[in-house]
Amino acid sequence: MDVNQGRLRSDLEANATFGAIGAPNGRGRTVLAGTDANREARDALVERLEAAGLEVEIDAVGNVTGTWIPDDVDPDAAPVVSGSHLDSVPEGGIFDGPLGVYGALEAVRAIQESDVEPDRPLAVVCFTEEEGTRFSGGLLGSSVATGRRPVEEALALTDDEGTTLEAALSEIGYRGTGRLDASAWDAFVELHVEQDSRLEETEVPVGVVTTITGIAHATARFVGETDHAGTTAMGDRTDALAAASEFVLALERAGREYALADSGTAVATVGKCVVTPNATNVVPGEVELGVDVRDVDYETMTALLEGAERTLERIREDRGVVTSMARELDVEPAPMSGRCRDALHAGAETADVDALSMHSGAAHDAMNVSRVTDAGMLFAPSREGLSHTPREWTEWEDCAVAVRTLAEALARLSTSGDGT
Amino acid sequence: MDVNQGRLRSDLEANATFGAIGAPNGRGRTVLAGTDANREARDALVERLEAAGLEVEIDAVGNVTGTWIPDDVDPDAAPVVSGSHLDSVPEGGIFDGPLGVYGALEAVRAIQESDVEPDRPLAVVCFTEEEGTRFSGGLLGSSVATGRRPVEEALALTDDEGTTLEAALSEIGYRGTGRLDASAWDAFVELHVEQDSRLEETEVPVGVVTTITGIAHATARFVGETDHAGTTAMGDRTDALAAASEFVLALERAGREYALADSGTAVATVGKCVVTPNATNVVPGEVELGVDVRDVDYETMTALLEGAERTLERIREDRGVVTSMARELDVEPAPMSGRCRDALHAGAETADVDALSMHSGAAHDAMNVSRVTDAGMLFAPSREGLSHTPREWTEWEDCAVAVRTLAEALARLSTSGDGT
Repeated sequence: MDVNQGRLRSDLEANATFGAIGAPNGRGRTVLAGTDANREARDALVERLEAAGLEVEIDAVGNVTGTWIPDDVDPDAAPVVSGSHLDSVPEGGIFDGPLGVYGALEAVRAIQESDVEPDRPLAVVCFTEEEGTRFSGGLLGSSVATGRRPVEEALALTDDEGTTLEAALSEIGYRGTGRLDASAWDAFVELHVEQDSRLEETEVPVGVVTTITGIAHATARFVGETDHAGTTAMGDRTDALAAASEFVLALERAGREYALADSGTAVATVGKCVVTPNATNVVPGEVELGVDVRDVDYETMTALLEGAERTLERIREDRGVVTSMARELDVEPAPMSGRCRDALHAGAETADVDALSMHSGAAHDAMNVSRVTDAGMLFAPSREGLSHTPREWTEWEDCAVAVRTLAEALARLSTSGDGT
Repeated sequence: MDVNQGRLRSDLEANATFGAIGAPNGRGRTVLAGTDANREARDALVERLEAAGLEVEIDAVGNVTGTWIPDDVDPDAAPVVSGSHLDSVPEGGIFDGPLGVYGALEAVRAIQESDVEPDRPLAVVCFTEEEGTRFSGGLLGSSVATGRRPVEEALALTDDEGTTLEAALSEIGYRGTGRLDASAWDAFVELHVEQDSRLEETEVPVGVVTTITGIAHATARFVGETDHAGTTAMGDRTDALAAASEFVLALERAGREYALADSGTAVATVGKCVVTPNATNVVPGEVELGVDVRDVDYETMTALLEGAERTLERIREDRGVVTSMARELDVEPAPMSGRCRDALHAGAETADVDALSMHSGAAHDAMNVSRVTDAGMLFAPSREGLSHTPREWTEWEDCAVAVRTLAEALARLSTSGDGT
């Protein structure tokens, strides 16, 4: 199948101008959900979807779907869908999200231009606020489309200024109607940049995701005593930061041990540390740590979190601090469907592209979709594994190779030969 | 000598109304240098100094001096001076500073009302911005009065909004002229709350300071690699927070060891920790730690800092992070003069008050003054050792007992019987 690399690049470069930031070492953009930059990006997408003959629908939370109903196809048949998101983190890169949206559009266009005769509609989807920077914890549009979060609850989410998602979407003209229902899809495949360097290191052009790791977030809290750093003798202190430091090192050690025991998929991170009062001359009275634990194996995640609880208990006993851990997020690993993985591997073979099976350490909208229908993911290489930075980069040739693989997989899934 | 506890209390309670904050568990105030609250506090002090017959002078950086020249005393003789500061930390207490200023005034009034006949002038001083919250790192007024910091440099200091000290002092009418010269003083004694619980625990009403500990501040910096917490395997990380956590624990351990080896005066603290980017799902790329090291023995301070440098070196080698340490403050311990200590002990004996010899773990203006003339410090008890909080408290009776001791000491220092 012929993928038009120039057209794909032109779409992605046009999209990169919305919310563009000056970045000396790369190409950056800031496109938060419901902003002007987001409206521009959505408008350009809608224009291109319509130009390709796709019928565009906007749901209540701003999810955009463009559906192509080939001649002689039942418009009510469950569609095969592909897509991703157009929002970014602050000062993010130009591929994370857009490659999956415009890659899906280019794949549909390639199928349209081929002699493939799909048995069902093909659709391109753009989910609202995958990154979760402004309103949510992330995966917002797909959580609504998969019934995990009610529409009204999502619309009522507010940003730091108190603006609701509903108001922001209305403002930019993307507060649509109804609810996109992903459970009615026949299958979903998301193309995304890898955000790691396994493809680059092995020099394999595409990755087929086996499982999206589960993810748990928790806040570990240490309450000691705020004291004058000059007048409080070492023996009279209950230093919350020293206590928290023990926890950071214990969690890192446990993460390393589990990573050695499994195939290196387990990760445990303290990414956030907030000290109160946080002054050089004051013994810290309180520390909050943001804990992130992930693995493809939910039992390992559970074991890491239970180990963290025991560490807190030990630190409490040793140091007299008050400790607690609040779990804020607990998402089980999401295995991709065998049907979609097979279609992607077969698509790669047809496209004459080597493919590597690999897990995804990052969460994606496909994670939500996998709970309600067959879902798969395809990765394109990320230079040096970088993402969420203007230095994020995927060669245009690599983009085209991944989209060719995607197009072959979508063709396979949407034709009866697929055999489900 | 008769100290008027009611008059002292009335002065301190009037001062406590300036910048007063609502505080459920105590009496708090926020009096930053050069603010309206600071103007009110200064105006009230000037009024009371003048009411007691003291001649008031304001120097270029706002240091307030009130001088009493007893009859038949050479007005040019080197004065005996006592005082402290009226500024506070944000949401501080009502005794830290004001007790030393109004205690000095009450001591002078008590001497005026006694049959003591001083041979030299007695003066009350209020230094500008001891706490250093708005413009400086602290001890601002005394650093100018002792020649450690040039007047012009001090006046050019700016707050977070870019307002200079000069502009702020002019605004409240306390940008005076000339430079207060502490080296021309015969002796200086500062009364202050202890900010520790040694007096409370031993039930001794006053403390005579032997040495003010030296203080070193440094920033330890750890630069690793910012990475996605989901996609970066444990073995591929250079986690700046884990590296910094090793440092926090090593410094605490070293501080404990030195405190055991000396008489428990050494303290080593990491009070501040700033993580970048500080998000739960991102492996920290950079951490800055605020390090505070103090002791009465400068060699111990030096050994602690050199040990910290070696720890950084080891962490750099073990973890591949880039480490550095910038020293921002390095003040040697300040022994109080034997003459002032003797006068305070003798004063306590005359006043029939038990006195404990003790070091000061906190820095005070007396630290600067001790470099240029004889200086001493007297401590009053702090309930539970608390300070820099509205819960800071010293019983009115304890305030009066300390001021009685101070008055006897000042009488002794200012009469020829003192024998220097």
